[in-house]
Amino acid sequence: MRMYDLIYTKKMGGELTPEQIAFWVKGAADGSIPDEQSASLLMATCWRGMTTAETLALTLAMRDSGKRLDLSAVPGVKVDKHSTGGVGDKTTLILGPIVAACGVPCPMFSGRGLGHTGGTVDKFAAIPGLRVELSEAEFLRSLAETGFANSAQTADIAPADRKLYALRDITATVESIPLITASIMSKKLAGGADALVLDVKCGSSAFMKTQEEAHTLAQSMVDVGRAHGMRIRALVTRMDAPLGWAIGNALEVMESVEILRGEHGDSELAQMSFRLAAEMLVLGGAAKDLAAAEALVAASIAKGTALETLRRFVALNGGDARALDDFSRLPQAGQVVQVRADRTGHVAAMDGRALGILAMELGAGRKNQGDVLDLGVGLRVRTRVGARIEAGEPLFDVHAKTGAAVDPAAFLATLRISDGPVASGPWLLEQLGN
Amino acid sequence: MRMYDLIYTKKMGGELTPEQIAFWVKGAADGSIPDEQSASLLMATCWRGMTTAETLALTLAMRDSGKRLDLSAVPGVKVDKHSTGGVGDKTTLILGPIVAACGVPCPMFSGRGLGHTGGTVDKFAAIPGLRVELSEAEFLRSLAETGFANSAQTADIAPADRKLYALRDITATVESIPLITASIMSKKLAGGADALVLDVKCGSSAFMKTQEEAHTLAQSMVDVGRAHGMRIRALVTRMDAPLGWAIGNALEVMESVEILRGEHGDSELAQMSFRLAAEMLVLGGAAKDLAAAEALVAASIAKGTALETLRRFVALNGGDARALDDFSRLPQAGQVVQVRADRTGHVAAMDGRALGILAMELGAGRKNQGDVLDLGVGLRVRTRVGARIEAGEPLFDVHAKTGAAVDPAAFLATLRISDGPVASGPWLLEQLGN
Repeated sequence: MRMYDLIYTKKMGGELTPEQIAFWVKGAADGSIPDEQSASLLMATCWRGMTTAETLALTLAMRDSGKRLDLSAVPGVKVDKHSTGGVGDKTTLILGPIVAACGVPCPMFSGRGLGHTGGTVDKFAAIPGLRVELSEAEFLRSLAETGFANSAQTADIAPADRKLYALRDITATVESIPLITASIMSKKLAGGADALVLDVKCGSSAFMKTQEEAHTLAQSMVDVGRAHGMRIRALVTRMDAPLGWAIGNALEVMESVEILRGEHGDSELAQMSFRLAAEMLVLGGAAKDLAAAEALVAASIAKGTALETLRRFVALNGGDARALDDFSRLPQAGQVVQVRADRTGHVAAMDGRALGILAMELGAGRKNQGDVLDLGVGLRVRTRVGARIEAGEPLFDVHAKTGAAVDPAAFLATLRISDGPVASGPWLLEQLGN
Repeated sequence: MRMYDLIYTKKMGGELTPEQIAFWVKGAADGSIPDEQSASLLMATCWRGMTTAETLALTLAMRDSGKRLDLSAVPGVKVDKHSTGGVGDKTTLILGPIVAACGVPCPMFSGRGLGHTGGTVDKFAAIPGLRVELSEAEFLRSLAETGFANSAQTADIAPADRKLYALRDITATVESIPLITASIMSKKLAGGADALVLDVKCGSSAFMKTQEEAHTLAQSMVDVGRAHGMRIRALVTRMDAPLGWAIGNALEVMESVEILRGEHGDSELAQMSFRLAAEMLVLGGAAKDLAAAEALVAASIAKGTALETLRRFVALNGGDARALDDFSRLPQAGQVVQVRADRTGHVAAMDGRALGILAMELGAGRKNQGDVLDLGVGLRVRTRVGARIEAGEPLFDVHAKTGAAVDPAAFLATLRISDGPVASGPWLLEQLGN
C-alpha cells in the first residue's frame, strides 16, 4: 500500500477503504508516513469530505492506536456525554451525579482548558484534594461504587488522534466535519461507554457558528455512532453567551452545586443539564421515555440523591466533600470588583469568547499549555441576553487576585446594549438520533 | 506573516498576495516553513486554484529563488520553446537550428529523461563528444556564435521549484494548473528569453489526457506570460502515439537530422517542428506573419542552413559534427530485431507510454534517476495510427543490446488493431496567444 495512492484517491473525490485508512493512521502515528503526506491527505479530506464508512474507519483506527477501557466489570448500560463546549459549560459536574444517582453508570473523561475555554478537569480540580487523574483501577472503582467517574484523559488514549490533531492545528485542517467527528468519537469509543449523548453548540460563543454547521457535525457523529452499533442521540443547542453565571473554576463548582441543591432551576444551565441527563437516562434504559426520565432527574434533585452522589464521588477520590456544602473551603480570589452598567438599555449580545479570555487573563485559564491556574479567580455574570439593565447596576462580579488587575471597560465591551427590548431565543434548537 | 494564515486563506477560497506567496516560496526553499505546511497549501491550491496574479507571483518567487541568466549581451529577441513533452518528441533538435539559422537567437535549457519519457539532454548526449552541461560562458558563446544554445538545466535555476516539485511528487499535488504553470514558467523566465512558444500536448500518450485540460494549461501559461509582459503563443497539439519514427537517443538524432536534410517533410514531426519554428520566428520579429515565417523555415531546410547551424553548434561545443552526416559515428545497438504484424487490419491506436517504457527497458531511458543510458538502443516505429497493415509486415525495428532482450509480443501489445479503416485526426487542435 502506498500513501500516495490514498492522497490521490481522496484528491480525485474517491472513497478510501477501511484498510487504507488504518494504514494511514498507523503510519502517521509511528512516523513511517511523513507528515507532509498526512498534511496533504488532511487538506484533501477538508476538500472532498468523507463518507460515514470512511469516518467510522478513521474513528476506529484512531481508537485502536491506543488503550481502550474495558468497563464490562461494571454492570448496566454505561452512558457518556460529549459537549463541543464553550465558556461556562459545567454541565458534566451537574449531570454526571444526576445520571449516576438515577442508576445509570456514567463514565467520563475530560480535558484541561486552553485559551478562552475552560476544561472540566480544571473545574473538578478546584475541589480541594480531589484526584483528577485517576488510574484505571480508581476509575473503575469510582464508577462501580458511585456510578460516576471522571478523569483527565490520559496520553495512552487515541495517541494517533493527538498526533494528527497537532498536525491539523498547524495546517489549517482542524475545521473538517469528518476529522472533528473522528477525533471526538475515537476518544469516546476508547472510553468504553455503550451509549452517548452529544451536545453540539452553535452561535457566537461556540466553535460552530451556525446552526447548519452544528447540525452537520451532530448528524455526522450520530451516523458514525449508529454505524458502529452505538446508542446515540444529539442535541443542537444555542450558545450566544456564557453558560450559567459562573466563569472560573471554583465559581463553576459553586454554581453546579447550587443547581444540584435545586437552586436556579429555571436557568438555561439547569434546563440544559437536566435535559441532557434525561436523554442519558433514556439511552441507559432507566426510563421508557423522556418524560419519565425528566421525572427521575427532578426527583434526584428534590431528594438530594444527585448532590449526595457528587459528595461520595469527591470523597472516594480524595476530595474534601465538605467544600460542596461550605464554599469557604473552595479556593477564593483575593478581591471582588463589581463592574457596573455605564448606561441604561437592554443586553442584546454577550461575547462569551471575550469573557473567556478575560477570565483566562485573571488566571482562570491557560494562555499556554502547562500554565498553572488560579482556581479561585473568575467572574459572576449578573445579567443575561435579553435583560433590561439600569445605569449603575452591577453586571459582573470580577473575582481577581488583586483589584488592580481589573479593567471595567474591558468587561463592559463584551456586551452589546440596545435601547429597545431584545428577544432571547430558545436554547434547544434541534434533536437528532433514535 | 504566519504560514497558517496563508493556508487558511487558500482553504477558504481566498486570494494570496504576492508578498504572502514570496514568503511561502522563500520559507519552503530555506526550510523555515515545515514541509507539512507547504503540503497543506499545495493541496489547498489544487482545490481552490490560483488567480493569474497569484500564479505570476508564484512564478516570479520561484524564478527569484535561484540564478537568472542575463542574455542581454546577445543582440535580438531571444525566443525559447517549451513542450509538455512526450515519447519521441525531438522537436528541439530540429527547430532550434532552424530558428537560429533564420536569424533569431534560440536559448534553450532541457531536462534528462525519467521513466517512459526521454529527455532532450539525453538525445543531444548521443552525439559523440557534445557537452550537454554548458557553463554560462559556453552557453552565451554558443548563442552568440551559432544562434543556438542548449544545455542541461543547472541546479541553481529555480531551486524553490525543485524543492516544491519533490514535495508535490509525494503528496499527489503535481496535477494543478497553476502549480504546473509556475513550475514551467519560473524556469523559462530564469532562462532569460524574451519570448516563448508553448507546445501543450494532449491525448493518450501525453501528460494532459483531454484537449480541455491542455487548453486550460496553455491558457494559464499564456495569461501568466502576458501578465509579465512577455511575447508568448501556445499551440495545443494532439499526441495519441509517439512523435516520429524514432524512440531512443541516437535514433532520435538520426530522425532529426533526416528532417533537417529535408526528408520526411510531410510527417507530423516535420510539420509540427516547422510550425513551432515559424511561430518562434514571428515572435522573434524575423517574419511579419506565419506564412512569411514558414517560407523562411522551408528555405533553411532547402538551403541546408539549418543543418549547418546544428553542425556548428555541435562542433563549437566539443561534439563530432561528422556524426550528423555519417550515422555510423553515432552510438549503435548490438542487434536489430524486427517485430512483425501477427494479423491483418488497421492500426487504431498506439500506446506511446507503453512504447516509452519498452524503450526504457532496452536501456534508452532511466528507471531511476542516475541510471546510465545505452544511447544506441531504441526502436523504429514502422507504422502509424490509421495505417493498414498486413500479417507478417514489419511494424517495429527494435535496436537492442542483444536480441534475447526483445519480446515481440510486448511490442505488438502496444497496438490496437481494428478490422475496418481508422481515421487519424489533425495534430494541431488549437492556437492561443497574440
